[in-house]
Amino acid sequence: MAQQHLDPTGPTAGATTGEALAAYLRAQATQFLRALRLHRETGGGSVAGAEGSVDAARALRRSARRISASLHTFRPLLDPGWSEEMRPELAWLSGTLGLEHAYESRLERLLLALHRLSGAAAFPEQADTAAGSRAAGAAPVPLTAALENAGGPAHATATRERGNLTVGAAKAGALLERQLTLARTRAHSTALQALGSSRFHAVTDKIAVLASEVPLTPAAPATDLRPLATAAEERLMDAITALPLVTAGHPYNAEALVHGLSPDPAPHPQDGPWHQVRLLLRLHRYAGEVLNGGNAPVDMRLLTAGQSLNRHRDASEAAAAATQAARTPRIAPATAYALGVLHADQRHEVEAARFAFQQAWQKQTVHAP
Amino acid sequence: MAQQHLDPTGPTAGATTGEALAAYLRAQATQFLRALRLHRETGGGSVAGAEGSVDAARALRRSARRISASLHTFRPLLDPGWSEEMRPELAWLSGTLGLEHAYESRLERLLLALHRLSGAAAFPEQADTAAGSRAAGAAPVPLTAALENAGGPAHATATRERGNLTVGAAKAGALLERQLTLARTRAHSTALQALGSSRFHAVTDKIAVLASEVPLTPAAPATDLRPLATAAEERLMDAITALPLVTAGHPYNAEALVHGLSPDPAPHPQDGPWHQVRLLLRLHRYAGEVLNGGNAPVDMRLLTAGQSLNRHRDASEAAAAATQAARTPRIAPATAYALGVLHADQRHEVEAARFAFQQAWQKQTVHAP
Repeated sequence: MAQQHLDPTGPTAGATTGEALAAYLRAQATQFLRALRLHRETGGGSVAGAEGSVDAARALRRSARRISASLHTFRPLLDPGWSEEMRPELAWLSGTLGLEHAYESRLERLLLALHRLSGAAAFPEQADTAAGSRAAGAAPVPLTAALENAGGPAHATATRERGNLTVGAAKAGALLERQLTLARTRAHSTALQALGSSRFHAVTDKIAVLASEVPLTPAAPATDLRPLATAAEERLMDAITALPLVTAGHPYNAEALVHGLSPDPAPHPQDGPWHQVRLLLRLHRYAGEVLNGGNAPVDMRLLTAGQSLNRHRDASEAAAAATQAARTPRIAPATAYALGVLHADQRHEVEAARFAFQQAWQKQTVHAP
Repeated sequence: MAQQHLDPTGPTAGATTGEALAAYLRAQATQFLRALRLHRETGGGSVAGAEGSVDAARALRRSARRISASLHTFRPLLDPGWSEEMRPELAWLSGTLGLEHAYESRLERLLLALHRLSGAAAFPEQADTAAGSRAAGAAPVPLTAALENAGGPAHATATRERGNLTVGAAKAGALLERQLTLARTRAHSTALQALGSSRFHAVTDKIAVLASEVPLTPAAPATDLRPLATAAEERLMDAITALPLVTAGHPYNAEALVHGLSPDPAPHPQDGPWHQVRLLLRLHRYAGEVLNGGNAPVDMRLLTAGQSLNRHRDASEAAAAATQAARTPRIAPATAYALGVLHADQRHEVEAARFAFQQAWQKQTVHAP
């Protein structure tokens, strides 16, 4: 391998082989183990170490995603038995560890949207601080307080003429807070159980081995990684070509809210291809990290495109959560109305994210060599 | 006046005086009287002559708007007493005659939006024809039928898990149909009463006089109309300059839905300046008609800008009607949810119309000499 680095202008210059993959996997495995140690030290979710624990869990997921993606993209270079055994375990790990955070940020997104939709006047007791707390990115917790101040049904009737929609926004916020906090608490317990399970210990043992010894195939150390990275990029390009980018690039095309009142419990199959591109874009980005040994300059356009697709996914899931909350039996009409507005607002965000992706991607194909 | 037309290249060529205003007002008054005769012949709203009656009412409003606008823009050239007496009467006439049509098109807009939001699958009995009827612009009447097919509350409970939002869309459609049809029927009766009133006969008598004799001031026949037309244009330009066009030109700025859940019964003061520009644009356009004797080529960009503002007004009022319907006591949560989605959808349309106006206007200022 070393001779490649001796002549950086030779015909094989820049060719990166399976050795680089092994180095990348070792580095990611090491980071995973470091994050795991940090997670244990910060108490794994206890109140005192909550913040450090969140960071550690994020770092755990970050490494697990990268190991998993590399196993996928560079599969032919890795021991098949090991690889096939590893991938579902990493998926389980990422999924289990990510759920709590997903519920938390979904709730934050929905409460921020409700605040925006209500205007400052909707929560007079917070009018002065609303802008400040939004700017600081703090979660707008006091929706429940606003609900309690608004009183029970008798008071709601008295203020129906002027204020029922506000009470609706506050009730919708309280309902979402209740449902998503419950989901988050459950996800937290599940994650804690997972971290203490024998299944988890089996994965971490394997990652500990990976930190020093990567099970490459015999031919891998001398195999060029680029064809496999190119194949990952081509899968991404094919998937992007299949997206309705002409429509997405036309502002206010009103596509994302089509079927907004459809009876289908999964009424947005149109989101699927975008979610798929999000995953393929990530695989492409991580393949680039492998090829460049983690030292590549950040491709801002790739990053922007990826962020648009994250926003697309977040808004899509937040819209679904609003619909789900609206299915709660015996809610007040004003609550349901507010959830309908919120759903449509988030589907609007879905459309905006597609537009942002189209803009970012167009720039990329224009400027890229 | 005639010498102006003798030398079309002289220094006063193209100068249009109060004589042209008089000719324009006579022509509009004549058209008003013709439309009135047609309206009476087609039965004034009876079933047999409904379509002709609608056309006649539209022509009546069209002439009344132009006479009223000319009185406003060229006020200094007209007898003040006559003018001040005439203007509120013309406003009353246009308002009274326009209301029925406004309710009708508002309902059509809202039902079309509900169909779009429900997707074809939401009304399976019409799945094959939905696309066709939308393309043909036909009003989607069968929402009530869909509601009736869906059955009562027992059935609604049974389908809650999968279909309550669809039932919600159908119920929302039926509710809007009931409320806006009632409003339209009342407006129709009011218009019929107005057409038979002594107040109406007094206005038409005055318009009959106007068709032959325009009460110009003594100086008017020799006064250049252009400074007054320019003043109208400047009022328009000032009002447009005050619009938040930078924001409007940024797609998906999410401005129009801010305060969507505000407790304020008139939560969209942000619409006001746009409505004002719509009126000023109309005054500017009619002033152009006066100057060009009705023979001016249609300014497509002015027309597009005006159409965007009509769409803005229609969507704004439709959104308010959805909110209003959601305030109906004892509606089902699914109905309220659908009305919330519909409200947000129409506010989205408001935002799209502002974007369209910004685009049209930008073109105009770039290309105009």
